[in-house]
Amino acid sequence: MTVELESLKGTYDYYAEDWATRKHLIEVVGEVAESFGFREIDPPSIERQGLWTEKEEDSVTDEMYAFEDKGGKDITLVPEQTPTRARMIQRRKDLKTPVKWYSTSKRWRYEDVTKGRDREFMQGDFDIFGLESVEADAEIIAAAGTIFKRLDLDDRVSLRINDRELLESILESHGIEKTEEAMKVVDDKEKMGEEEFREDLRERGLSGEAAEQVDELTDISGPILENIESLRETAPEEVQERIDRMESLGEALERHGVADMCRFDLSIVRGLAYYTGLVFEAFDSEGELRALFGGGRYDDLVSEFGEQEVPAVGFAFGYSPTIELLKKEGRYPLKGTETDAYVLSVSESVRGKALGYAAELRNEGLCVETDLGDRSFGQQLGYADSINAEKVLIVGENDLENDEVTVKDMETGDERKIPQDEVLESLS
Amino acid sequence: MTVELESLKGTYDYYAEDWATRKHLIEVVGEVAESFGFREIDPPSIERQGLWTEKEEDSVTDEMYAFEDKGGKDITLVPEQTPTRARMIQRRKDLKTPVKWYSTSKRWRYEDVTKGRDREFMQGDFDIFGLESVEADAEIIAAAGTIFKRLDLDDRVSLRINDRELLESILESHGIEKTEEAMKVVDDKEKMGEEEFREDLRERGLSGEAAEQVDELTDISGPILENIESLRETAPEEVQERIDRMESLGEALERHGVADMCRFDLSIVRGLAYYTGLVFEAFDSEGELRALFGGGRYDDLVSEFGEQEVPAVGFAFGYSPTIELLKKEGRYPLKGTETDAYVLSVSESVRGKALGYAAELRNEGLCVETDLGDRSFGQQLGYADSINAEKVLIVGENDLENDEVTVKDMETGDERKIPQDEVLESLS
Repeated sequence: MTVELESLKGTYDYYAEDWATRKHLIEVVGEVAESFGFREIDPPSIERQGLWTEKEEDSVTDEMYAFEDKGGKDITLVPEQTPTRARMIQRRKDLKTPVKWYSTSKRWRYEDVTKGRDREFMQGDFDIFGLESVEADAEIIAAAGTIFKRLDLDDRVSLRINDRELLESILESHGIEKTEEAMKVVDDKEKMGEEEFREDLRERGLSGEAAEQVDELTDISGPILENIESLRETAPEEVQERIDRMESLGEALERHGVADMCRFDLSIVRGLAYYTGLVFEAFDSEGELRALFGGGRYDDLVSEFGEQEVPAVGFAFGYSPTIELLKKEGRYPLKGTETDAYVLSVSESVRGKALGYAAELRNEGLCVETDLGDRSFGQQLGYADSINAEKVLIVGENDLENDEVTVKDMETGDERKIPQDEVLESLS
Repeated sequence: MTVELESLKGTYDYYAEDWATRKHLIEVVGEVAESFGFREIDPPSIERQGLWTEKEEDSVTDEMYAFEDKGGKDITLVPEQTPTRARMIQRRKDLKTPVKWYSTSKRWRYEDVTKGRDREFMQGDFDIFGLESVEADAEIIAAAGTIFKRLDLDDRVSLRINDRELLESILESHGIEKTEEAMKVVDDKEKMGEEEFREDLRERGLSGEAAEQVDELTDISGPILENIESLRETAPEEVQERIDRMESLGEALERHGVADMCRFDLSIVRGLAYYTGLVFEAFDSEGELRALFGGGRYDDLVSEFGEQEVPAVGFAFGYSPTIELLKKEGRYPLKGTETDAYVLSVSESVRGKALGYAAELRNEGLCVETDLGDRSFGQQLGYADSINAEKVLIVGENDLENDEVTVKDMETGDERKIPQDEVLESLS
């Protein structure tokens, strides 16, 4: 039998040394989520295709790993989790709001493989269901920002925030009628030059003056509270309510301690049609990578999956782009192989004794390895080094006769003899 | 759009309250694995079908979620992880042995759904590659047993151990030639009566006397060291080497502290043809559930996937059967919703202050929720109770004027006022 040893394109064999950093990220995401009181859920990885295909606007259906199961059902590997969560919310009328869910799990999309874009990938999802409040908006952004603070990457992350309703009402207040069309163009603004941008707007029916105004407005970008204050000065009455909300958001983000990462940016739209208010996305501040995370408020989506009207705000965290950012920063791997102690048997006769020490130390929660292969002293030390053992406990007959063992510090090379009954205490 | 709200049959929506126990099990499995120096890997969830279909003896291929991807490749959701691990070992010639891997991940098999048997399920896999030693055998069993010790389920688990080579050489020493045939029958012994068992052996060509001997031998079951000693007395010279190995295993399991869970049982064969020596499986000691875990030594399998000859020993841990066991014991859920503190704002004006406390406490690693919905005092207390908050920090204007806040213990109902600058200390 000839086996292709490589994994499928866009999927990866994460060996221990690569997985350690990803696992650490998953743990940090989990710790931050739990500190905010998000509760972990675990939805299925396979679902009925209809959850995606019966909604018209989704482009994701072209990329699904979709197939028929042995029972004739059209199923798919989940390309994202929002419809599943909407379904889960609709199934339960007894959940106490706010429902705050997070999870880290695999997604699958058959698309071109590039740096930070895989076919099988891990994603973290956070949502708050059941509240329309600006406090919920702020908490979602704060959770996202705190992850990068914990990773000491916050000064490398630019978190751009907008409110689609605010943008729309400003456009309307400037007499621009085709706001929907204008916002589609704004969504692509970053990829265009000024002339191209204005022309595209004119082609979609905006006057030359209106196009100029949209261009100027969507150049507004900077610290939230400062920018919202200057926007307020020129904005008419009907926009004030959304300005108030953005101001409250800015204040809450200060309290959450993440305001320094955030910028108000009227050009952020996020293509997905389902967002109804807040939208935000975060990029490497040098701007080369895919979005590190992004999200927003989607108050109308959940009701497409059942009877309950349930407002929602959430974000998705991208593990692969974050790993790419760590690599750019020269901080990859964040974690390597770690071992608290290796218990070395000098000879066959002390193996049982050595194993006993290993078992005791493991019971204390330490990571401990010992010889499994009747290896020489030197081979054992070499292996202990290869697994980055901090300490080596050397168990030999002569020492044991004096009721002692030897502890070797693998960092300094220092050795010292300790009484047998102090092993636990000395290594814990 | 009408959505079927239920997940696909055999897949489950794990809401937070169900997931908490499973997550705790995953953490215990991870802690035990790491204490033994197993390193976590993360292999793909989709693979080429050939990894399974090109090997003849696998029955698992009928149950695979197999399909063609958009690039025309025949792929499958992984039904188990052994071929993937063999592939990963073969890809890398630089790995230092022993290679000790574990992971917990999802598997998919389209089969009948029963208690403890799902179509999408979590499994834990542990392997030691690169060593033929009895010490490696012992460590694998010890890791498995220690998981149940940590869960305080060890007295409910019966871990039955055999060595296929030992059984085979005993059968041969009794002049039984058709050992392969005999072992197939032994594999089904538990489901048969004595007469049926002996007759089945005779039908496969064993003499009446041989059938009787096989029946008696495979009734041997009990503490390892005791039983191996009595076996030694009657066993001929050529069997002694395998008896020595089983004795060493028994001694090592004593040292590992798991011998009390283990029984030597000459009737354990484990159908899978690839096992070459040690085999073991663990059941609920009341015997009603599917295997909680099982495994053994498979020294020839890895070489089917590439050039390197790599001995291996491993086991798979079943999460769903373990959950069923916890339920039988009345110990489900093991974990519920836990929250360290809820920060309650008595009025709109103190909301910023409350949010500041929440952020500080979260930075200390505590799980903290606060009001996101402008709710009344009573509603907030009700929500705090619903998330099992241990403490409620009540932030009100009057208290703040005295530089104080109130801490309510939700267990006892006691309230006490504390100075504002003692909040962290008092709740951490």
